[in-house]
Amino acid sequence: MESMMIIVLKAGVSEADETRVLNEIESRGYSVHVIREGGRVIIAAFGKEQTPQTLEALTSWPQVEKVTPVQKRYKLVKRGTPQERTIVRINDHVSIGGNAVHLMAGPCSVENEKQIMTVAESVKASGATILRGGAFKPRTSPYEFQGLGEKGLKLLDKARKATGLAIITECLSEEHVELVAEYTDIIQIGTRNAQNFQLLIAAARTGKPILLKRGSGMKIEEWLLAGEYILNSGNPNLLFCERGIRTFETYTRNTLDLSAIPIMKKETHCPIVIDPSQGCGSAKLVDSLCIGAVAMGADALLIEVHPDPAHAWSDGPQQITLEEFARLSSAIRPFLTAAGRTLGHIG
Amino acid sequence: MESMMIIVLKAGVSEADETRVLNEIESRGYSVHVIREGGRVIIAAFGKEQTPQTLEALTSWPQVEKVTPVQKRYKLVKRGTPQERTIVRINDHVSIGGNAVHLMAGPCSVENEKQIMTVAESVKASGATILRGGAFKPRTSPYEFQGLGEKGLKLLDKARKATGLAIITECLSEEHVELVAEYTDIIQIGTRNAQNFQLLIAAARTGKPILLKRGSGMKIEEWLLAGEYILNSGNPNLLFCERGIRTFETYTRNTLDLSAIPIMKKETHCPIVIDPSQGCGSAKLVDSLCIGAVAMGADALLIEVHPDPAHAWSDGPQQITLEEFARLSSAIRPFLTAAGRTLGHIG
Amino acid sequence: MESMMIIVLKAGVSEADETRVLNEIESRGYSVHVIREGGRVIIAAFGKEQTPQTLEALTSWPQVEKVTPVQKRYKLVKRGTPQERTIVRINDHVSIGGNAVHLMAGPCSVENEKQIMTVAESVKASGATILRGGAFKPRTSPYEFQGLGEKGLKLLDKARKATGLAIITECLSEEHVELVAEYTDIIQIGTRNAQNFQLLIAAARTGKPILLKRGSGMKIEEWLLAGEYILNSGNPNLLFCERGIRTFETYTRNTLDLSAIPIMKKETHCPIVIDPSQGCGSAKLVDSLCIGAVAMGADALLIEVHPDPAHAWSDGPQQITLEEFARLSSAIRPFLTAAGRTLGHIG
Amino acid sequence: MESMMIIVLKAGVSEADETRVLNEIESRGYSVHVIREGGRVIIAAFGKEQTPQTLEALTSWPQVEKVTPVQKRYKLVKRGTPQERTIVRINDHVSIGGNAVHLMAGPCSVENEKQIMTVAESVKASGATILRGGAFKPRTSPYEFQGLGEKGLKLLDKARKATGLAIITECLSEEHVELVAEYTDIIQIGTRNAQNFQLLIAAARTGKPILLKRGSGMKIEEWLLAGEYILNSGNPNLLFCERGIRTFETYTRNTLDLSAIPIMKKETHCPIVIDPSQGCGSAKLVDSLCIGAVAMGADALLIEVHPDPAHAWSDGPQQITLEEFARLSSAIRPFLTAAGRTLGHIG
Repeated sequence: MESMMIIVLKAGVSEADETRVLNEIESRGYSVHVIREGGRVIIAAFGKEQTPQTLEALTSWPQVEKVTPVQKRYKLVKRGTPQERTIVRINDHVSIGGNAVHLMAGPCSVENEKQIMTVAESVKASGATILRGGAFKPRTSPYEFQGLGEKGLKLLDKARKATGLAIITECLSEEHVELVAEYTDIIQIGTRNAQNFQLLIAAARTGKPILLKRGSGMKIEEWLLAGEYILNSGNPNLLFCERGIRTFETYTRNTLDLSAIPIMKKETHCPIVIDPSQGCGSAKLVDSLCIGAVAMGADALLIEVHPDPAHAWSDGPQQITLEEFARLSSAIRPFLTAAGRTLGHIG
Repeated sequence: MESMMIIVLKAGVSEADETRVLNEIESRGYSVHVIREGGRVIIAAFGKEQTPQTLEALTSWPQVEKVTPVQKRYKLVKRGTPQERTIVRINDHVSIGGNAVHLMAGPCSVENEKQIMTVAESVKASGATILRGGAFKPRTSPYEFQGLGEKGLKLLDKARKATGLAIITECLSEEHVELVAEYTDIIQIGTRNAQNFQLLIAAARTGKPILLKRGSGMKIEEWLLAGEYILNSGNPNLLFCERGIRTFETYTRNTLDLSAIPIMKKETHCPIVIDPSQGCGSAKLVDSLCIGAVAMGADALLIEVHPDPAHAWSDGPQQITLEEFARLSSAIRPFLTAAGRTLGHIG
Repeated sequence: MESMMIIVLKAGVSEADETRVLNEIESRGYSVHVIREGGRVIIAAFGKEQTPQTLEALTSWPQVEKVTPVQKRYKLVKRGTPQERTIVRINDHVSIGGNAVHLMAGPCSVENEKQIMTVAESVKASGATILRGGAFKPRTSPYEFQGLGEKGLKLLDKARKATGLAIITECLSEEHVELVAEYTDIIQIGTRNAQNFQLLIAAARTGKPILLKRGSGMKIEEWLLAGEYILNSGNPNLLFCERGIRTFETYTRNTLDLSAIPIMKKETHCPIVIDPSQGCGSAKLVDSLCIGAVAMGADALLIEVHPDPAHAWSDGPQQITLEEFARLSSAIRPFLTAAGRTLGHIG
Repeated sequence: MESMMIIVLKAGVSEADETRVLNEIESRGYSVHVIREGGRVIIAAFGKEQTPQTLEALTSWPQVEKVTPVQKRYKLVKRGTPQERTIVRINDHVSIGGNAVHLMAGPCSVENEKQIMTVAESVKASGATILRGGAFKPRTSPYEFQGLGEKGLKLLDKARKATGLAIITECLSEEHVELVAEYTDIIQIGTRNAQNFQLLIAAARTGKPILLKRGSGMKIEEWLLAGEYILNSGNPNLLFCERGIRTFETYTRNTLDLSAIPIMKKETHCPIVIDPSQGCGSAKLVDSLCIGAVAMGADALLIEVHPDPAHAWSDGPQQITLEEFARLSSAIRPFLTAAGRTLGHIG
């Protein structure tokens, strides 16, 4: 990968010390430009990172003040021209990244057949095209419900057949990748696994579209680089999903970073999805966050919907009811129109 | 102020240790309810905080596991009913908090007469009703431009007279409160002074509307409590302004917390203003953030606009041009309509 | 698991609404205590979480203001008495958690035989008892060096045989667990996988001691709960390792949270290890952080040491030289003595 | 101030666009070096910031990819040589920054004569040389105790006369600067006012030693620049005080950043003080944090001590008792010795 580095030497370094740095850089195959002014020495180095070593390690040399990489570290996810955008085909009837904005909705966890069928039919009637539902659940405590596993996948499949909705569900283990891919239309990588690169590679290799959630402590650049693992594994069907970052604020569970929408639109050609439910952890804020997300250009929303949140087996406080989802689906329409977008539908 | 506290004792405390805690709580005028079950003791205490002491200090007692306050700590800024909202009258022609959404626009710093007059006329033509401009500037380094001071205030006044725009400018010292209040329509309290309570009280006492920016490291509750200082000083004319919080993300200067809009709408009757310019530190993101803010219910936007950002005396990277502001003002209109709001105008 | 919840109802709820909440709680097998005073209703509920549902989901009911869990959520990692502490036996010669403080040292990545043998001999001579070295490397970018894999494990094994040092190396995939366990004495779970629960369970089941790094965005409580997955999988040999959390500060790569030492000493009986190299990302700060860690009671230090940091294949800026490690090992001794600890040795 | 900037142009900019940037930079009095390689253009600019404008504003130009300042922004607080260190003389008997480490101890708030005299005598007997006590208190809520004001200052003065201890107390308003300076030996600037530059300047002008707390959301560089305001106002007697930064962790009130000690030792010649009480908000952690701070090279500790923390008028949970302080003062001595330091004493 192309590498451009600026190396600033400390004020007053000896010529010998400067020469040592220059020799070192050249010995690694970089071409070197030296700028001297007012006693300061600045070196610009251009090259390719052909070895595992990076020039940044030169900061450990006593005569070096600072080493700053200049180039972007990601290339495959990077938007080349403002027009470039990837449309991810989910199945024969649904694609994400075009003009239509899709609603992905469903319970945090798949609990039983009645629950998932009720939700599927209701959210479909309210305009969703994709059914979400957790079968494998990553839970902070080992004493919390861990999901129905394969049984949950089979229930999702049943709901898909009955409604025609596409399916998204999380995969949290390399060992489940094949199994999950067999049932789902989109493989979701959760926030806790956003830098579990082995899982990313395994999931990517199935060829299924991947929805990559941002880690709650992850910088935009790191998120893009995690996406780079997907594309670099030969799978171009990548959706980025912002779901809240961890800040000092305790009113919400996370701080949903809606500025990620315009940023990701500038940096990458891949679609951007917003998860307001995880993003705030509070059902009462979901409406407003969806409206903001749609206005700002999100390509899809991922929303937790449950027939009876107070009895949900996980994350009750952030799930909205079937009726609230129906109202939300109506509430966002004027904003879709204002944004020149339409609501995605099947077919 | 009403106080409700839950005190949990450690498992297995002796009766004598329990009695000491109960006596202590009662001696402070609280009424006490004791719950015992399965060897655990939980105490609910109801009272008024009449003394400077708080029951939270009981956590220093060895037999106490946890003391949790139950009530909200703010009362004057608190929204009582969902309908309650305060409309802040800025001058005879402009009010904030009603159906109209106002644009406050202008340069980071007032630099000279030509600059401020050019901006004022242009932003007025583009739909702004309030002119912003810094005369006293809080700068991270003492070597940066600190503002024109009173001369800047006079230039703002001139622009006001020429255009009919209202004025907002920052006050950063108790010693300037009188002077700033003489010239401005809204006193802005900046993020670095958001918990400079002496300044808040002094500014509030002028009776002028106060725009209180959220400190970049401030929780929602602390922001509401800082607002409580304004109302408690007898000044009901308070605007809260979200301007980005400090997170680990380095792509933007701050992370604009748009979820603050629905949260503040629920918690307080005071209007909420969004400052996207400080919020992200990048002119290229301002459009999208304004659109999101308007869609989510912001009552006003505070936007940095400069005729020539590359030559601005401060914060060039985040200021947009006059032409960009004109386009932005158009771009938000469909979203205002979608939100059932109108663009504020003078009169 | 035992569950104690405090449910606060909104001011002025009707009797019918209150009854609905009480019935709901009782229907879930909780015993209920109701406190009424000054128009407020507070409910204390005691029970066991026997179902996947939790009372926290009641926050979605309109009449409920707040639901607060009172009990701690972890039990196996929890320190029962101040005296309780677990000593983790690494091999026949080395144990961690007793009076001796152990040094784990070695390169970020195993690069070749000469490198790892040189480091092993040198750090042993300087007092280390455990050799660290990455064979599988989780790298932010797919274009960075990903480790030598099994070849790296074999080199570590060779260094072990030659020196008698115990070995610690990271496992970042469930699929490598068996392989890594075959070679290493301690399985390291890295910060990016700290909530990759499937990996935690798989690693724990090998029975090998586990060093669990704190996720860079992980609260103490979440870290303890991740540890709970290890113990709950039947493996009591758990070491917690603080390695820096992500904050807004950019001077360092992370902010090493040394307060985690006294906190973990209070909360858990498991030993606590400090990784200053990852913790700050800068070789120049490692000394001082090690001294602080030892003084504050760390049971072991995990330090990156490289014969030639400027040529390291990964993380050069934070690795110290063999000579610096020798000096560091001397520098901490007076602080070990002051803390009433000794330096761990083999045998 | 000397300014070095690296300006990176976007890939593929036209010659005309490049020339415009070069002309602009030169027109501002900078000398310019251009590096061209592989289609990329990098400009190094050297100059003085003589105008309020900064080259960073060039990021608003479409052809510019990035503008990176190279030099450090602070100069007066900057450590020139490793040997350079400032010793701040507090009064005829006490100086901070030399080999002796001083204990500043006392209650969060001065409450009454008996309390402050009791504390003063006790902490003196335990080895403190400086008495802390708040007379003006910045409180998050207007309903909390705001301090005794001048009466508190008089009580501190009385305690000083009785014991010979030096006095440190907070000033939180420009209007109190003269008054506070009349009574105190060190003016404390609190975390909420760390970027209240007008207050910093006013306090500095009294000539009294200033203890500048780090803002809880402040980067090291910003803290150094705030210190620059003090030295730039002609007052060289500056103590920096780390007191915890705001992070996502909720176990502690703040995260005490002990890595600030070695960082500040490298960056500045001014002494560094640690406040563990504010730093963690929990009396139970104070001991360990003090030990770490002393081991790592802190020049003084600022510790909240109260005869009866459960009855304290503010911050009870984080204050330690007189007996605990006596034990703490003993506990740190072996670590002082290990660090080659002594405990400061009067005279």
